[in-house]
Amino acid sequence: MLVLDLGGTVAFAASGSLLAARRGFDFVGSLLLGSLAGMGGGTVRDIILGKAPPTSFERLEYLAAAVFAALLVYVKVLKVHRLRRTLLISDAVGLALFCVSGTLIAHNAGANPVAAALLGLTTAVGGGVLRDVVANEVPQIFSVRGVYAIPAFVGAGITIGLVYLDMFNAYTAVGTAALVFVFRVAALKWQWTVPAAVYRPKKTRT
Amino acid sequence: MLVLDLGGTVAFAASGSLLAARRGFDFVGSLLLGSLAGMGGGTVRDIILGKAPPTSFERLEYLAAAVFAALLVYVKVLKVHRLRRTLLISDAVGLALFCVSGTLIAHNAGANPVAAALLGLTTAVGGGVLRDVVANEVPQIFSVRGVYAIPAFVGAGITIGLVYLDMFNAYTAVGTAALVFVFRVAALKWQWTVPAAVYRPKKTRT
Amino acid sequence: MLVLDLGGTVAFAASGSLLAARRGFDFVGSLLLGSLAGMGGGTVRDIILGKAPPTSFERLEYLAAAVFAALLVYVKVLKVHRLRRTLLISDAVGLALFCVSGTLIAHNAGANPVAAALLGLTTAVGGGVLRDVVANEVPQIFSVRGVYAIPAFVGAGITIGLVYLDMFNAYTAVGTAALVFVFRVAALKWQWTVPAAVYRPKKTRT
Repeated sequence: MLVLDLGGTVAFAASGSLLAARRGFDFVGSLLLGSLAGMGGGTVRDIILGKAPPTSFERLEYLAAAVFAALLVYVKVLKVHRLRRTLLISDAVGLALFCVSGTLIAHNAGANPVAAALLGLTTAVGGGVLRDVVANEVPQIFSVRGVYAIPAFVGAGITIGLVYLDMFNAYTAVGTAALVFVFRVAALKWQWTVPAAVYRPKKTRT
Repeated sequence: MLVLDLGGTVAFAASGSLLAARRGFDFVGSLLLGSLAGMGGGTVRDIILGKAPPTSFERLEYLAAAVFAALLVYVKVLKVHRLRRTLLISDAVGLALFCVSGTLIAHNAGANPVAAALLGLTTAVGGGVLRDVVANEVPQIFSVRGVYAIPAFVGAGITIGLVYLDMFNAYTAVGTAALVFVFRVAALKWQWTVPAAVYRPKKTRT
Repeated sequence: MLVLDLGGTVAFAASGSLLAARRGFDFVGSLLLGSLAGMGGGTVRDIILGKAPPTSFERLEYLAAAVFAALLVYVKVLKVHRLRRTLLISDAVGLALFCVSGTLIAHNAGANPVAAALLGLTTAVGGGVLRDVVANEVPQIFSVRGVYAIPAFVGAGITIGLVYLDMFNAYTAVGTAALVFVFRVAALKWQWTVPAAVYRPKKTRT
């Protein structure tokens, strides 16, 4: 489980560092935005669960993961010449891993099934929202091109279902994350959309 | 009291969903922005009070209120063709209800009078600020046209006064909320202003 | 220690009120943005430490400090005609004082050395980030002209070092804060920069 959670941290931290690169921020900004993206969702979840201090401040692995991601971006291991795309992919990896690990952590902390799924969703989308808000951008979660929150919520729901069916293990966890990732990437590729906030009947010609 | 609090949640959630509609977000964005507006202020208050998990994550009524508001906006029960105005009104309703319920909840949790009033203010304005910040807008609270925070603070002050005078009941609670709502709407209608952040002597002609 | 912390609150609150002045917000906006800047970093630190309610909501001195700063800006004791510069200076004072007081408070609350330094950094930069995010600006911390987070982190590191060497007292505390302030102002004056988020080899002519 720690592996999933740290993997998600690296992936989200990379998305933060890539955004910093796109915006022309310096290396410290890259580190800060990466840390916020990578550890923000989990920190908000722990605060809501009343866990003080949050795991991300208690264990150094999370900070190390953020530093590692910032260095990956700095030395261009992550394809910086295709910034936007790499950012979306690493964001999708983080989303997939965090909706599983966040839900499980909330469940283990005693949250009821609905709260656990909501906290899994919060963990998965929280870091990305904080990243975008602090960088003064409209959060990716509100982008109408490509479904974002739904895959994470589905993943959180499957996780809580697996837990209650006593079928949650390393394989089903990775499988759920993979499903969420494929769902998100497919939604990006084919630009799946959900209905608008207001019902608009399709225009009909006469 | 729960009725006031849920009413405030619906009103603020509607303001969030209406903002999502104005910005062209999709239905999921509407649900998320509505939930943030409706439950954000109370969640921040509960976190500051050290109540974990916050009520909004523990009781499903709050989430249901946000879903209900998003559906209201979707089926255009709320006048979407006058988006800006409907948004301001539902925001004012939420402000009026939350400054009363937030102050009482903080008082019941053992906060001293000043802290209770401040937390009532935080509950009332927190959701709206989160809504605007996440949607990448300048928060309505900073708009110079129309007084926003003062009615909420006055309402929180009256509430704490009523509690200490042992005169707080369903009637005075609704009366206080009504007063705050009228104050806010009047301030909007006649564009009341408060002095600017820097003293500027009125220009005099010679 | 309370003196350092209140001094930092006044300085950051002044930076918030000055930003409100620059943006043309009204006096209530000045008070709110000042309170957020002055008390935001410490409130986030206390929430992460699990201290409820946060000191800023418990003690009235902090609120009084924010009101005092807003009044200073209102009556133009702070040079409003050189807004940008005065804002940067008061921000630097807050940064210097909070990285020392925040680290010490986190240490006294039982945080391990690394967490204490990170929380000192959070206290120092948190209020400024909240101020800029809520005012819908790109946070100063991401500005590539002038080093911002590094002086605060160095100050937090020195503070935790002094505490472990049993050499922390009023003199060394003020000395550390002064060092951070000079470091930050020098970085602003000579526009020191750190490497960009992505490694870019220097262009060479042929």
